[in-house]
Amino acid sequence: MVQVAPMRLQMETTVRDIQEVICEAVEHIDGRSFRRDSWSRPEGGGGLSCVLQNGNVFEKAGVNISTVMGTLSSEAMRSLKLGGQAAPQRSTAFYATGVSVVIHPHNPMAPTVHANYRYFELDGGRADGNWWFGGGSDLTPAYLIESDAAHFHRTLKEACDRHDPAFYPRFKKICDDYFYLPHRGERRGIGGIFFDHLNERTPEFYLAFVTDCARAFVPSYFPLIEQRKDMPFSTEQKAWQQLRRGRYVEFNLVYDRGTTFGLKTGGRVESILMSLPHTAAWEYDHQPREGSPEALTIETLKHPREWV
Amino acid sequence: MVQVAPMRLQMETTVRDIQEVICEAVEHIDGRSFRRDSWSRPEGGGGLSCVLQNGNVFEKAGVNISTVMGTLSSEAMRSLKLGGQAAPQRSTAFYATGVSVVIHPHNPMAPTVHANYRYFELDGGRADGNWWFGGGSDLTPAYLIESDAAHFHRTLKEACDRHDPAFYPRFKKICDDYFYLPHRGERRGIGGIFFDHLNERTPEFYLAFVTDCARAFVPSYFPLIEQRKDMPFSTEQKAWQQLRRGRYVEFNLVYDRGTTFGLKTGGRVESILMSLPHTAAWEYDHQPREGSPEALTIETLKHPREWV
Repeated sequence: MVQVAPMRLQMETTVRDIQEVICEAVEHIDGRSFRRDSWSRPEGGGGLSCVLQNGNVFEKAGVNISTVMGTLSSEAMRSLKLGGQAAPQRSTAFYATGVSVVIHPHNPMAPTVHANYRYFELDGGRADGNWWFGGGSDLTPAYLIESDAAHFHRTLKEACDRHDPAFYPRFKKICDDYFYLPHRGERRGIGGIFFDHLNERTPEFYLAFVTDCARAFVPSYFPLIEQRKDMPFSTEQKAWQQLRRGRYVEFNLVYDRGTTFGLKTGGRVESILMSLPHTAAWEYDHQPREGSPEALTIETLKHPREWV
Repeated sequence: MVQVAPMRLQMETTVRDIQEVICEAVEHIDGRSFRRDSWSRPEGGGGLSCVLQNGNVFEKAGVNISTVMGTLSSEAMRSLKLGGQAAPQRSTAFYATGVSVVIHPHNPMAPTVHANYRYFELDGGRADGNWWFGGGSDLTPAYLIESDAAHFHRTLKEACDRHDPAFYPRFKKICDDYFYLPHRGERRGIGGIFFDHLNERTPEFYLAFVTDCARAFVPSYFPLIEQRKDMPFSTEQKAWQQLRRGRYVEFNLVYDRGTTFGLKTGGRVESILMSLPHTAAWEYDHQPREGSPEALTIETLKHPREWV
């Protein structure tokens, strides 16, 4: 008889494997090594934060895994929109494990990428609705290269389609809706997939799904980096990348639920803010010239497209 | 018989005068001129945003005045913590006028400064508690120069003391408490004064008070700039300034009530985000060397001092 590990341990193993694979891909292309910090938190759990700063190809690459557990106050439950209408009036045990990746390359022709895959349990995860999977991956180019956008989306769609053909269109739209800066009327990037609270089928089904999505990370992104990392660029193009980085910071600090919740509830600050670029810029009322590549980026962020 | 203008108009005049005085001081020391954008909003009111970017002395200087009016939803009232326990269930007419200044110099030895003075009315300001003044000014050095901190605080204290000797100690503490990044355990800077909802005495009393504070802006700050703008500095000192600018962005985007409220309620984005520096940086787990000037800055941000 085969002994099957509990879902927590299966996902922890997946998350560790994915981190290893992504770190290897980054180091292989960059030539420099990650700094690896393992950490623990007094309330329970810990993680391993891998960061590469000021590399040859990457301005900043962060690959973080964590497994945390403890109790969530009823206030935190409400703020996380957990428990639905019947949000409990008492504090509740939680468990979460996941991997989170953000990679900012130096070259303004090479896009920034983000991915995050996670498993969550409330109250031991025993009842239906008390466990779920979430995650996704999205691309943020300073300059839109259509073939890159199409390759990125196609690779994710193939991973989704192997599990349910309804997933990609649904999760693509959720991604466009989530990574949105209302005050700019722009998305953060050109999207990808995003999903949360997946628990209608079995945990095993979703574990296989998120594992497949996470394994699609390297083939979805690294071919683009290979092609773009040594492209020539001008000072003006670098400056435009810095303004786009500023928007990235705006989204993460003002709207991203993981970031704002983490900062306000005593998460590990350095791991949470690994997602920020090394450098960013803001310029008053910057308006790209009509018909320019910069204007095309903005246009695409204002009106998301279908890529496959 | 002398006709006295309504408080709204008196404060609007003050705000315009202050903007003019500050812009002149900036242009005098920088040698370059402000771009001046006047704007109006469909819901009522408008403003004049003056911005100087990439000047000789200043990386970015923004001096913004606005007068806005309209109705606040009951949700916005609650989010602004207006109306106390008895927050109205209906939307309420509001009026606000104010001036807001943020100046980021190039030289890392020269501090960033912020000031904001404003007058607010709910429901026509007829009833007690339906009008108030707010504002303050605070200094954010990358490198602590004690005599600069003392000069800045002393100048503000003198303005306060002319109206009530209890003001400076009270408003100094509120400032230290408000400009605080809980996730860092640090203040944004070395403080100054900050106050809100001043309405216990007459409007005329507070108008005289905030006018005096606002007039103290130029003598509190520009002597420091004169002394620091041409100081020699190293690449490392410039990099440290960029990290401190990153913290400035974190405070403004995550915690500052004016910024987050403005962005989420359809304020004029370019005027709101004028407060952000032109450039900022984030580095994973940056730790200043023990006993270094950078460590002294951090120490002072963690444990606010008395400066006069």
